[in-house]
Amino acid sequence: MTSGDALLVADLIGVAVFAASGASAGVAKRLDLFGVAFVGFVAALGGGILRDLAIGAVPPLAFADWRYAVTAVLASVAVFWLHPRLNRVRRTVLLLDAAGLGLFTATGTLKALDAGVPPVGACLLGMLTAIGGGLARDLLTGEIPVVLQREIYAVVALGGAVLVTVAERMGFTGPVPLITAASLMTGVRLIALYRRWSVPVAMP
Amino acid sequence: MTSGDALLVADLIGVAVFAASGASAGVAKRLDLFGVAFVGFVAALGGGILRDLAIGAVPPLAFADWRYAVTAVLASVAVFWLHPRLNRVRRTVLLLDAAGLGLFTATGTLKALDAGVPPVGACLLGMLTAIGGGLARDLLTGEIPVVLQREIYAVVALGGAVLVTVAERMGFTGPVPLITAASLMTGVRLIALYRRWSVPVAMP
Amino acid sequence: MTSGDALLVADLIGVAVFAASGASAGVAKRLDLFGVAFVGFVAALGGGILRDLAIGAVPPLAFADWRYAVTAVLASVAVFWLHPRLNRVRRTVLLLDAAGLGLFTATGTLKALDAGVPPVGACLLGMLTAIGGGLARDLLTGEIPVVLQREIYAVVALGGAVLVTVAERMGFTGPVPLITAASLMTGVRLIALYRRWSVPVAMP
Repeated sequence: MTSGDALLVADLIGVAVFAASGASAGVAKRLDLFGVAFVGFVAALGGGILRDLAIGAVPPLAFADWRYAVTAVLASVAVFWLHPRLNRVRRTVLLLDAAGLGLFTATGTLKALDAGVPPVGACLLGMLTAIGGGLARDLLTGEIPVVLQREIYAVVALGGAVLVTVAERMGFTGPVPLITAASLMTGVRLIALYRRWSVPVAMP
Repeated sequence: MTSGDALLVADLIGVAVFAASGASAGVAKRLDLFGVAFVGFVAALGGGILRDLAIGAVPPLAFADWRYAVTAVLASVAVFWLHPRLNRVRRTVLLLDAAGLGLFTATGTLKALDAGVPPVGACLLGMLTAIGGGLARDLLTGEIPVVLQREIYAVVALGGAVLVTVAERMGFTGPVPLITAASLMTGVRLIALYRRWSVPVAMP
Repeated sequence: MTSGDALLVADLIGVAVFAASGASAGVAKRLDLFGVAFVGFVAALGGGILRDLAIGAVPPLAFADWRYAVTAVLASVAVFWLHPRLNRVRRTVLLLDAAGLGLFTATGTLKALDAGVPPVGACLLGMLTAIGGGLARDLLTGEIPVVLQREIYAVVALGGAVLVTVAERMGFTGPVPLITAASLMTGVRLIALYRRWSVPVAMP
């Protein structure tokens, strides 16, 4: 298994986890099987589609490589059938979601930098890669996006994106800095979950 | 009238019908004339705009050819003035909507294949061409998209897109396979409406 | 200060005002600091991002020039801390918002024309530059977009976009016609606000 293969497998695990989060939201809203699969697809791949459109990578990876769409749909269908049993694996899902957050941010930021986007824009696009799907999931199911309301989630992505950008500008390339940054984001996200850290809300 | 003209006329009929569905939703939500026209425009052309962005066809057809925007706006304004009388033609509207579903899916899938999108992605973009406008219409009017909740609609589009892709890969080109596939989708959609077929919902 | 500098400053004032409108909506919905900044960013730059994607200008200006994102975020954070005092400057905010409406429409229309979009499409994209951010702001905060429901706002943008297009086709270029058209839109918007003009709603 080459490092490219390893990155693809990691990416597809992220897709599956984010699709599962979308599919769960769809089941909770009593969507039909198609709706559940669609929300799963959008939750997993919406952020990457937005990034690819913004950097001019057309067609976006979600449409160019069938493995992404098929992974998202299979994960969504699995949730549709298995959802009553998913509560038992809730901790595992949160762990994998944190892994997806770190990985999507790191790869999204690097893709934007590689496409020639300046640092600030690349950080924003890296963060959007990670949070865009969840935003779209919440809009499709009629909710104000949870990422805008509470918890340390997008801020972890933004901080990680800055780290990835600084490392790339200092000349660190290849899988090691990427995996280090992704792991760091995942770790901070898990600590934030465990300690119930949150971002301040304005005084009324 | 050449076959290109025929296709344009068919396309504009699809635009008018989808715009009418958007405008009706806008009237029901008490939007003003601008809002009704805007939701009509988005319902008719939102799916195609998304497809064009994804295949790199810029500016999207909705902005490149004025006949699309003008058709959508005229149909919306007609609904704004005539809506109390539209209930009488409800069956006609459902028939035309089914025709739009078939046609938009078939042309959307072919455009994606022509732009070099691989088969799975082209099927997804073909389906999105047909359902994207309705999704945007429902989001703009504060509803969870109906296409995600019930009825056989998007699944007909997806099946039809697969058919169009297989036919194209087998070497069938020109208007005949396109019209055949579009008619088949329209027929299945009408049967699904008549028989009240629906997609399963997950057990609670 | 060159006329290019003057245009940039004017553009950034528009960004700050639209970001403030988004941030205010975010504060009202009790979003956290990140959510407030995100909605501010989208309200200020969402319309321009949509326009840039549609004309193939990638990466969109919001990601290509850091001054846009930083201005939007700073204005949003200012609203987060200062919002109880903002009611006192409500008239100023409405004035600046009207200025942003005129300016964003004028520059958006010209950018679309420069990119080769035909007149009707360029008018639509100019209007979308001005109203797209507000649409996205309302969707993110769970509201049916206010621009679709009442008030003379988008119609001013559309009329102004037509004016800009006609002037450009008649050979008027440079900052003078742009500023004239922007000022005219701002003036009409302010009169519409003052006189409480509104667009008709369909009879029930």
